[in-house]
Amino acid sequence: MTSLEFPVTERTRTLLRLEQLYQRLVFFIAQNEPYQHHAALMALFEVLEAAGRTELKSELLQELERQKQALESWRESADIAQVTLERVLDEIELTSQRLLEYTSRFGQHLRENEWLMAIKQRSVIPGGTSPFDLPSYHLWLQRPAEVRRVDLLRWAAPLMPTAEAAAILLRLLRDSGKQFSYVARGGAFQQMSGGKVVQLIRISYADTLQVVPELSANKYALNIRFVEVGTGDARPRQAEQDIDFTLTFCKF
Amino acid sequence: MTSLEFPVTERTRTLLRLEQLYQRLVFFIAQNEPYQHHAALMALFEVLEAAGRTELKSELLQELERQKQALESWRESADIAQVTLERVLDEIELTSQRLLEYTSRFGQHLRENEWLMAIKQRSVIPGGTSPFDLPSYHLWLQRPAEVRRVDLLRWAAPLMPTAEAAAILLRLLRDSGKQFSYVARGGAFQQMSGGKVVQLIRISYADTLQVVPELSANKYALNIRFVEVGTGDARPRQAEQDIDFTLTFCKF
Repeated sequence: MTSLEFPVTERTRTLLRLEQLYQRLVFFIAQNEPYQHHAALMALFEVLEAAGRTELKSELLQELERQKQALESWRESADIAQVTLERVLDEIELTSQRLLEYTSRFGQHLRENEWLMAIKQRSVIPGGTSPFDLPSYHLWLQRPAEVRRVDLLRWAAPLMPTAEAAAILLRLLRDSGKQFSYVARGGAFQQMSGGKVVQLIRISYADTLQVVPELSANKYALNIRFVEVGTGDARPRQAEQDIDFTLTFCKF
Repeated sequence: MTSLEFPVTERTRTLLRLEQLYQRLVFFIAQNEPYQHHAALMALFEVLEAAGRTELKSELLQELERQKQALESWRESADIAQVTLERVLDEIELTSQRLLEYTSRFGQHLRENEWLMAIKQRSVIPGGTSPFDLPSYHLWLQRPAEVRRVDLLRWAAPLMPTAEAAAILLRLLRDSGKQFSYVARGGAFQQMSGGKVVQLIRISYADTLQVVPELSANKYALNIRFVEVGTGDARPRQAEQDIDFTLTFCKF
C-alpha cells in the first residue's frame, strides 16, 4: 500500500517539514562515517532555518495546551484507556516544560558558535567545505565517530523539545483519522468540503499502481488528480484508469 | 600524523573540490538508506554546480595532454618502470577520450530532466523536499535500494570522466611531492619562495598536537601559522609552542 500525507493547514505543513528534517538529523547522527556526520550537520543547519521562526515556539505551546485540555475532558470516561491517556498527558506536560525551559532564541547556541557558523556559511558554496577551506572542520571529521557524535548530540539537544512537540502533535493528529473509500474515475476525484476543515489528509492506494496523487484542498473543495510517475523528463500525464483509494481525514 | 593539503593555484583548488565532492557522491550512492540516497542526489547537484563551468573540460583535456607529453619523455629511460609508465599513459588516453566523447554541456542530461530539476529547486528551501512537496520523489525513495542505485549511477555516469581526469591529475601531482622538515617557532613559519611556483603544499605534523595550520602562499612567500583547534565559539589563538612539521611541495 502506498500512503502519502498532505497538510491542509500551514501549521500542519510546518509540523510535517520539521518531522522530516529531525528524522534525517537523528538518522545521520546515529551513523559513523565522516560524510554522514557532515550530512548530520547540514540537517542541523536546515532545522535551524526551518524552525527559526520566532512564533513557532508559542504556537507549539498553544497547540499542546489545546490538546491537553481536549484530552483532559476524556478523564473518567469509560471508553478511554485511562493509563494511555495519563501517559500522553504526562508527555505533553514534560515537552511543554522543556520548550519553556529553553529561554534563548531557537538555536541561539549554534548562531553564537563561530566555528559552526563558518561551516554553515561555506556549505552553501558547491564544494565549499573542502578540507583546505575549513581545516579544523576536516580534522574534526577525522576524529573518532563517538567523539563527533557527542558534539553533534550536544549541538542538537536544545533543538529537540521542538522535535518532541511536533511528534506528539502529529501523533495525536494522525490518531484522529477517519478513513473513507473512493474511486477516482479516469484518475480524477472531487469532493465538496462543505466548510469542513481538516488539518491533514492521507491518501492510500495499491502500490502496484504507478501513479502519484496531486491534491488541492481548501474549505470548499477537495481535488485529487492521479498522475503517472516517472523519473525522466516526460511531463507527468494524468492516469486514465479508475483508481481505488482511501482518504483519511485527520483533524484535532 | 595529521596531513592537510593546500592548493596554491586556482586549478588545483578546483581539482581538490571536485575530488571531495565526487568522493561524497560515490560514497552515498553505495549506501542503501533513503536519506543516504537523498544525500547522494544533493552531492550530484553540488557536482553539477561545481563542475559546470564551460572551460573546465578543455582545461582538464589540456592538462592531461601536457602530462602525457611530460611522461612520454621518460619512455626508454632506464630509471623509470616502463610498465607503470605505459599504464598511466593508457589511463590518460582513455580518460581524455571519454571526456571528448561526451559532447553535450556538462550535466545537460540532468538539466533536461524536469523531475530532477524540481528536486534540485526545492532542495534549497529548508525542509523543502518533504514528501508532500515532491510525492513522486518520496515514492522513488521508497523503492528498493538497488532500483534507486541504478538510477543514481545512470545520472552520475556522464559526469564521471571529469572525476577520473581530476583523480589522475591529482595523483600525478601528489606523486611529484618533495618533502622537507621544518620547525614553526612559536607556531609561526615563513619562507621566501624565490619565484618558485608549486601547485599544492601538504603540511604534516604529529596528530597529538591540537593545532591546525593556516597557510598563505604566493610566488614570493609562504606563511604558515598554527592555531589551536576548538569547536566552540572561542576565537582561534595562535599556538605558542615550537611545532615540528614537514612540508611537501607538489608541482607538475
